Parts: sequence; structure tokens; C-alpha cells
Amino acid sequence: MELPLGFLAGATRAGLKPSGNPDLALLYGEGPLAWAYVATTNRAAAPCVLRGRQRHASEAPLRALVVNAGNANAATGEAGVAADLGMAELAAERLGVRPDEVLTASTGVIGVPLPVDRIAAALPGIRLGSSLEPFAEAILTTDTRPKLAEVPLPGGARVVGVAKGSGMIHPNMATMFGFLLTDAALDQAELRARWPEVVNATFNQVTVDGDTSTNDMAAIFASGAKGRVEPGFFWEAVTAVARDLARQIAADGEGATKLIEVRVVGAASLTDARRAARAVAGSLLWKAAVYGNDPNWGRVLAALGYSGALLDPARVRIELEGIPLYDGAPLPFDREEAARAMQRAEVRVRADLRQGGFEAEAWGSDLTEGYVKINAEYTT
Amino acid sequence: MELPLGFLAGATRAGLKPSGNPDLALLYGEGPLAWAYVATTNRAAAPCVLRGRQRHASEAPLRALVVNAGNANAATGEAGVAADLGMAELAAERLGVRPDEVLTASTGVIGVPLPVDRIAAALPGIRLGSSLEPFAEAILTTDTRPKLAEVPLPGGARVVGVAKGSGMIHPNMATMFGFLLTDAALDQAELRARWPEVVNATFNQVTVDGDTSTNDMAAIFASGAKGRVEPGFFWEAVTAVARDLARQIAADGEGATKLIEVRVVGAASLTDARRAARAVAGSLLWKAAVYGNDPNWGRVLAALGYSGALLDPARVRIELEGIPLYDGAPLPFDREEAARAMQRAEVRVRADLRQGGFEAEAWGSDLTEGYVKINAEYTT
Repeated sequence: MELPLGFLAGATRAGLKPSGNPDLALLYGEGPLAWAYVATTNRAAAPCVLRGRQRHASEAPLRALVVNAGNANAATGEAGVAADLGMAELAAERLGVRPDEVLTASTGVIGVPLPVDRIAAALPGIRLGSSLEPFAEAILTTDTRPKLAEVPLPGGARVVGVAKGSGMIHPNMATMFGFLLTDAALDQAELRARWPEVVNATFNQVTVDGDTSTNDMAAIFASGAKGRVEPGFFWEAVTAVARDLARQIAADGEGATKLIEVRVVGAASLTDARRAARAVAGSLLWKAAVYGNDPNWGRVLAALGYSGALLDPARVRIELEGIPLYDGAPLPFDREEAARAMQRAEVRVRADLRQGGFEAEAWGSDLTEGYVKINAEYTT
Repeated sequence: MELPLGFLAGATRAGLKPSGNPDLALLYGEGPLAWAYVATTNRAAAPCVLRGRQRHASEAPLRALVVNAGNANAATGEAGVAADLGMAELAAERLGVRPDEVLTASTGVIGVPLPVDRIAAALPGIRLGSSLEPFAEAILTTDTRPKLAEVPLPGGARVVGVAKGSGMIHPNMATMFGFLLTDAALDQAELRARWPEVVNATFNQVTVDGDTSTNDMAAIFASGAKGRVEPGFFWEAVTAVARDLARQIAADGEGATKLIEVRVVGAASLTDARRAARAVAGSLLWKAAVYGNDPNWGRVLAALGYSGALLDPARVRIELEGIPLYDGAPLPFDREEAARAMQRAEVRVRADLRQGGFEAEAWGSDLTEGYVKINAEYTT
């Protein structure tokens, strides 16, 4: 995928991933980039997150993003803070910008010192170009495929996105990176005013395992090279790209064979709609049922019930792939047909709470033996 | 296990479990029983829970408890409410007490009408006796073993407990029943004043899969047959029995091969200590690591970090089976030795937050392929 105008990117192998795959990626703005940033709420947040928050608070534009995948550089004490700064300094040197113009991002194993010497050795080897694919490949960890999305804007500008996900994925940022790039011109203040709401409606509605990571972040960068666009178009495109990436992240959850899409309508508030949708998408019992093609809607109702959202089970309606299963009481349905409908790569559940006019989506993946296998054997 | 004085119990087969095992259990008080009750916070709570809350609010003593295992009678609409009342009426008739003196409890599949006719047909066949074992067997669902505990009191009275657990286990009541029985004499007001705190420290600190069920309850019944005991002894015994049962429930989580015991000390508040311990015990990533004998303490720190408890990762200390792994920064440790220490049936983690003087325990189980298998194939 072609980068928007004003951006260059590249990647290389630094030897951080046991697989030997590319694991160090650079994104470069030919000029100053307006940006907005949301990061993990985890109190054990990694140095890259702490530093990113500082950079964000400075309100200064950025020039670059450096990402390593393979080592989260979290829980690494003072040495980790120094390593993170070192990564920024090395990237700045490579690109001819100032270290405080470089955002850092790390993902991978927690608690292992980040070998900055390998990053130093590898950075000069990165060739910057106009394709996003090498960057998208290099930021992956246990993901099985790169995650890219784009939406064109009127006038030739574009919104392009790249993400990584896979495990430790849960609202309020998971081991999830979502980076959106645009060559539209936006005031940084406007970006910052609306970006968190886009993240809340998309990336924060993805749940793979309920574990909120120490390192996650979602950021948007605008080069402005194509000039201003109508804000309505722009935010629609940004939301579409972020939603597309969120779905890709859920579909590629660790060990996943299916994407679960949950739509809750009729909620008493937006908060209720979101928490109810997340509870269903995150219910281990429902995730296991989806894996087993088991239309066990009782688990959906149970998850709605403990989500905290206002509801009365006598008024709730649940549909699975368009098949009504429950409407205040169990409905008769063809179990074979419902089980067959669940054999798709994407399983959609819809719940109407009949409490009000708010709705939300959430995405998760099925729970499989593969998830257990991947996570029982991660470091040893 | 012998029942405390003043209680009788028994069980039979009503044909609610596909296995054909006993699934209908009665507990009978020879006189009025003082009691206290805590039940699920799930908004889709089953009729037995709604009825139990009404009985509790009436402040009247009880005479009996009837439990069916195999059908949760949840999400069954108006018919479910009638079925629950029917079960109480039938049990009352069998025992010669009033229906409003009978507490009901159901567990099993959600959304399938409860066949009251089978309960009617089976109830006369229950022979009441002084042993708790038949009751303990009959209330199980996917549990692999009955859960019993007892502690003697000075003067010959006893506290005896029986529980079932297995899946959908999470704080604020899971598919968990915990019933404690004593022949000590306690004012009902005193029982009710202190029982919720016992539940918070024990049953509500168990997490198997994060799914809070529609049906769970924890209750204590006192016959008074052995007279009054010193309250200090009594509540210590009650807490010990409830803790023992909580550990048994966690150890027998669906697909579990190990019990995970988490102890958090040095928390800024009791709430912080409990939520931090629960977050670790409930982290899928840590549960999978325990299954794989992987001393990946980074996942413990990450869970503490997202628990919401006040902490600074630079001050946290983490020990696994007594081996220090992290103390503000990673500590060198023998990975082989740590992996060997994890091969026990019980894996203990201890975290010191160094924020204050509060501590708590939580219990969970490892996450295995077996959990996925059980829950992917539950109803179909």
C-alpha cells in the first residue's frame, strides 16, 4: 500500500524476534506531522508509553515513529527508560531530526532488557520508501498477517492505516498498535479533540483475552501535503479505517479461527451499548461456543447481564446471523441451521436491549485450543 | 461428611443431567434456620435468585433448600418463574413445610425450560439422612469432584460447607454455589451483618473465566442445635470453610490442571488488594503461562497494572513459589528451577505493591485446551 504524500517508511531485521523476521520499523514525515495519541491505561505502562505521553503533552509536532517488535521493553526498570530514549536518539540520528521529534513504540516480551546495540546496528540498514508493507510486516508479533486499510478522500488525499494485534488485546488498549496516516491537512488541536472518540468506537471495542497490555497505543499523523478536506468526510474516513483495522485485529486474535462481531442496539446510553457489546465479544464461554458452532445464546444473555448495562431479560432480543434466538423468552429455532450459520469466518450477534436509542459494536475472536497453545509456550 | 445437628439432606436422579447422575438435592432443617444469602449481580439473574432475594428480604427463617443441577432455569421467561415456584412448592410438600420456607437453587444450561414434572416425580424418592455426600454429588455440573469442608468449634458445634463450581466462575458470584451449615446458634441479624464480608474475601475472590453467572449464590444456615459459641471462633471457622471451598472450586475449574493462588500484600486499600489479586488470578495470559510452566512474570506485572490498583512498577516485587523474579526491575533467576516449581498442583504467586498495609488472596486455575474443549461442546 502506497503511503500518503509526505510520508516515507521502511523496516529491517534487528534480531529481536526469535523468528529472525523483520522487527524494526521507521515512519518518517518529510515535514512536521500534526498528531494525536491514545495509549494504554495500564499502570505498569512501558517507557515508550510514558515518553509518548510526554511528547503528546508538549503539543509539538512529530517527525518520526520508530517501532520495534519482539521486545516490549516493559518492566525493565531504569535501564528500560534509558533504552527507550536510546532508541529515539538512534532513530533521530538516522533520520536527521531531533530525538524529541521521534515517537517510540515497543511490543513483545515483557521484562527482558531491550538490546539497544542491535537497534543501533540495524537502523542504518533501513531503506525508506513509499510503500507501507515492510513497516506493516515488521511491527507484527504473534499476528499471522499484516493489517492495512485505506479510504480515499475527496480531492486526492487519503487516510491509510496499519495495525498489529494478536494477544493481550482488550479495551483501553491491548497489545495493539494502530497508526493512521493522512496527507490531509488538519489542525493538531482538531485531531486531538476527535481522535480519542474514534479510538473508543473502534480499537477500544476489540477484545481478545481481557488482558490490557503495558504498551498499546493508537495514533494518527497528518502531513498536510494534500491540503484541507471537509471535516465530515475526513472523520468518516478515519473511523472507517480504524474500524477496518479493529476488525482485522480481532479476526487475527491468537489462535482465532473466526471473527465475532457484536452489535448492541437499544441501549440506555452509549456507555451501556459499548460495555454490553464488549462483554459479549469478550465472554470466554461465548467465544468457546462460537469456536464449537454452538448457538448457545444463553451465554450471550448472561454476558449482557453482567456487563453492567441496564437491561431487563424479559425485554432483550438476541439474533445470531439474522436468526432470532431469544425475545424475552427462548424462541424455537432450527439448531442445525444456526450451527451451520456459525461455520463462517465471521459470526455476527445482535442484541436489542430495548432500553433506549444507543448502539455500539464490538469485536472479538473465538477461543480455541490454539490460543492456549500459543500462550502456554510464549517465553520458554 | 456428617451434617451438623438439626440438618438432614438427601438427593436423587430427576433426569436433568445428560449423564444420568443424581441432580436433585434437598437440605432440610428440623427447626427454623437462621440464614444469610448473597447472590449474583448479573442483571439476567435466574428466577431462583430473584425469589431468593425476596425470601431474604422477608427476614423470615428458612426450613429447606432444594437444588437442581442440569438446568439453570435462567432466561426462560415467565414459564421459568412459574417453574421455580413450582420447585419450591413441590419441595415444601415433600417436607411438610410452607413454600415460602424453601430456598431454590438451579444450575446448568441456560434458556431451556425446567421440566418441573421430572422434579415432581423424583422428589418423593429422596431419602433424607445425616450425610452430606449425596447432596454434594447431586449439585455438581461439570465439576469433577464434590467439594466439602468442615471446621469444629469449641463446645462440639461445627461449621460444614458444600460447594459446586467449575465454569462461568468469576467474582460477584459465578456458577458457584457455596452453602455453609452450622449447628451453632447465631442471631440471623448477626449472620447477615457479617456473611457478605466472608463471601467477599473468599468466594468472590475466585475466578475461572471472568463470566459471572446468572444463578450463583452463597448462603449460610444455622440450626442453633448446639447453642451459642464465641463469635470470634465462629467467624474464623466460617471464613476457613468458605476459603477452603473457594480453593476447591478454583482447583476444579473447567479443564484445570492446577490451582493458582495469588497473594497481594502492601496494597493501598483492601479494595486494591482484592482487585489486584483477582486480576492476576484471572489473567488468561498468566493462566496459560501457568499451564505451560512458564515463569513469565511480566504477565503478572501487566495484570497488576491493569487491575486498577494503585502501584508504581518501580516498587513492585513479585515472587513465584518463593522465588523472587522482579523487584522494581527484573531479577536474575534460574528459569529451569522456576519452571520446575510451577509443575505443582498449586502455584503460588505473591506480589508486594509497597503502597500500604492491605492484603488479599485470590484463586484461579490454569487455562488449558481442556477448558476450550468443554465449553465448545456444552450444549450441542
